[in-house]
Amino acid sequence: MQAAQYIGNKQFSIIETSPIPPKDDEVRINVGFVGICGTDMHIYHGVMDARVNPPHTIGHEISGTVAEVGKNVSGFSVGERVVVRPLDYCGDCPACHAGHSHVCHNLKFMGIDTPGAFQNSWTVKARTLHKLPANVDLQQGALIEPLAVACHDISRARVTAGEHVVVLGGGPIGQLVALVAKSLGAHVLISEPNENRRQFAAQYGIDTINPITDDIAEFVKQWSDQKGADAVFEVSGVQPAVDAMVQVAAVRGRICMVAIHSQKPQVDLFQFFWKELELLGARVYEHADFEMAVDLVASGKVDLKPFITSISKLSDIGDAFASMDNNPIGMKALVSCEQQ
Amino acid sequence: MQAAQYIGNKQFSIIETSPIPPKDDEVRINVGFVGICGTDMHIYHGVMDARVNPPHTIGHEISGTVAEVGKNVSGFSVGERVVVRPLDYCGDCPACHAGHSHVCHNLKFMGIDTPGAFQNSWTVKARTLHKLPANVDLQQGALIEPLAVACHDISRARVTAGEHVVVLGGGPIGQLVALVAKSLGAHVLISEPNENRRQFAAQYGIDTINPITDDIAEFVKQWSDQKGADAVFEVSGVQPAVDAMVQVAAVRGRICMVAIHSQKPQVDLFQFFWKELELLGARVYEHADFEMAVDLVASGKVDLKPFITSISKLSDIGDAFASMDNNPIGMKALVSCEQQ
Repeated sequence: MQAAQYIGNKQFSIIETSPIPPKDDEVRINVGFVGICGTDMHIYHGVMDARVNPPHTIGHEISGTVAEVGKNVSGFSVGERVVVRPLDYCGDCPACHAGHSHVCHNLKFMGIDTPGAFQNSWTVKARTLHKLPANVDLQQGALIEPLAVACHDISRARVTAGEHVVVLGGGPIGQLVALVAKSLGAHVLISEPNENRRQFAAQYGIDTINPITDDIAEFVKQWSDQKGADAVFEVSGVQPAVDAMVQVAAVRGRICMVAIHSQKPQVDLFQFFWKELELLGARVYEHADFEMAVDLVASGKVDLKPFITSISKLSDIGDAFASMDNNPIGMKALVSCEQQ
Repeated sequence: MQAAQYIGNKQFSIIETSPIPPKDDEVRINVGFVGICGTDMHIYHGVMDARVNPPHTIGHEISGTVAEVGKNVSGFSVGERVVVRPLDYCGDCPACHAGHSHVCHNLKFMGIDTPGAFQNSWTVKARTLHKLPANVDLQQGALIEPLAVACHDISRARVTAGEHVVVLGGGPIGQLVALVAKSLGAHVLISEPNENRRQFAAQYGIDTINPITDDIAEFVKQWSDQKGADAVFEVSGVQPAVDAMVQVAAVRGRICMVAIHSQKPQVDLFQFFWKELELLGARVYEHADFEMAVDLVASGKVDLKPFITSISKLSDIGDAFASMDNNPIGMKALVSCEQQ
């Protein structure tokens, strides 16, 4: 079998290796497709080398087929199609004890802190698996993980039918957040400077605005009949969006912090007081978010196919990453990891 | 009867005027005691002149006795002792329709946007009244309003028994927030640089820390057995507290924004993402917060008497304000407004 290894400096190498037999609580998966995540791009750029310690096999947006099951595993059989919730939690820290194992104090993110899925075979704990229904193919399956991120964001912000929802940033996660909100019956607006991304949203019937040329605060006021946005998702990571999020939010509006702000932006805390706003941080996903994501695709409420920009062979993984580098048009590049 | 009027530039004048007969839905109150609020001090300093439009009678932390009732008023009788929830909402904006009339789009804060209580007689809508039980005197009654602020803050942050609660800032509201949290069975720590304020908290058995000389992040980690604070209240309005609030909060910790930040401080939004923190703005109070505040005093769970620093006559209101100006020791100055 083959595995791709990130070796630093935007480079990958393909190595020959052997499948890892599953331990008692593990399952070995024949990998189907693996998506390239924004975090994978950060790794590719070398900014996370201290954490990933190359050479290292990355990748965590994965679909595949069960190939072997450990002797204590029940509920999964060889041949079943699955996706992986790539979180390895300790189960014995204050966060785990409080029921928040997805933000475990000692969380290992599989594919970053431990080996990942850009290989023919991946061996993981059975507790990380979710089944794919018959009508969800392995290509869409590789997008269940980012869709589960969006489900988690929507859940954190408690979006309900009929609400007005503003998504600041129209990259893959922003688009998925918008689609999940729409599937729940919300009115959804994406604020995004890039025209291609606005068009991508428009094909799903989602309203869009260009925040560079239009006054988003005034637009949202009219769009929401003076109320403001019930929920706002900050998915851009830039200061103007941090300014906009408090401006567009309604009294008692919920703002979900999805973006990773490596700097400390200035935040209008007065408006938090004045409008009794809520800011809710959201990181990764919980078990229920993966189940919701699978259901949304299986039921046809969310169509993931338009998100698939390209499909590359594992041996071409370097080109696949290069093609997504600073590519504002591409949504999701998949790497086919099925053994040839 | 007499009324005090703020006339600008830290000056008051006492005028002779007439009681205002109550309209059909109103009640006229013989004013008992009125507390001086931090907002009143801001007005005194002239920074809110554009809003209050002097000459103007201010004051909103009030207790009194019903003197006259309008013909459509039921449930209140002459001679009953009451406090006033000084919010005049429109009842017909998106916030009111959503059940959040206390943050009404068109809210008039009585004593700021409309005439207030620093006078012998005050006429208000009956819907603003709450009754005082027999064992709560009028002096403590004047502190029900700030205690209701604290009850609202605690409610917004969903504090429960056994939780670890950190209050950043030991002024009157910070102290009251700490006492309400303690009354619910929480472990409470006040972070406050001023020694007198730390001693004030300590008399109630509340833990304290000096954030200038001690490492609050490390202290809270030990104090909470590695978990961090379940709830944090930012009641100081300064950048170091905004830094501390995200550091001391546990995974999924709730941070309540009580302070008014007129500048836009830098906020570590990465930690909101990483620890899935919540920030909850809290402004004024709702009906239930006033009822809770009255109950806490009537049941003896919160003793407000130590908060009363001084009691002045209405004719000495100028001296009362001057004595509280930049006074880090004083907690609450009352003005006796009973007609002589």
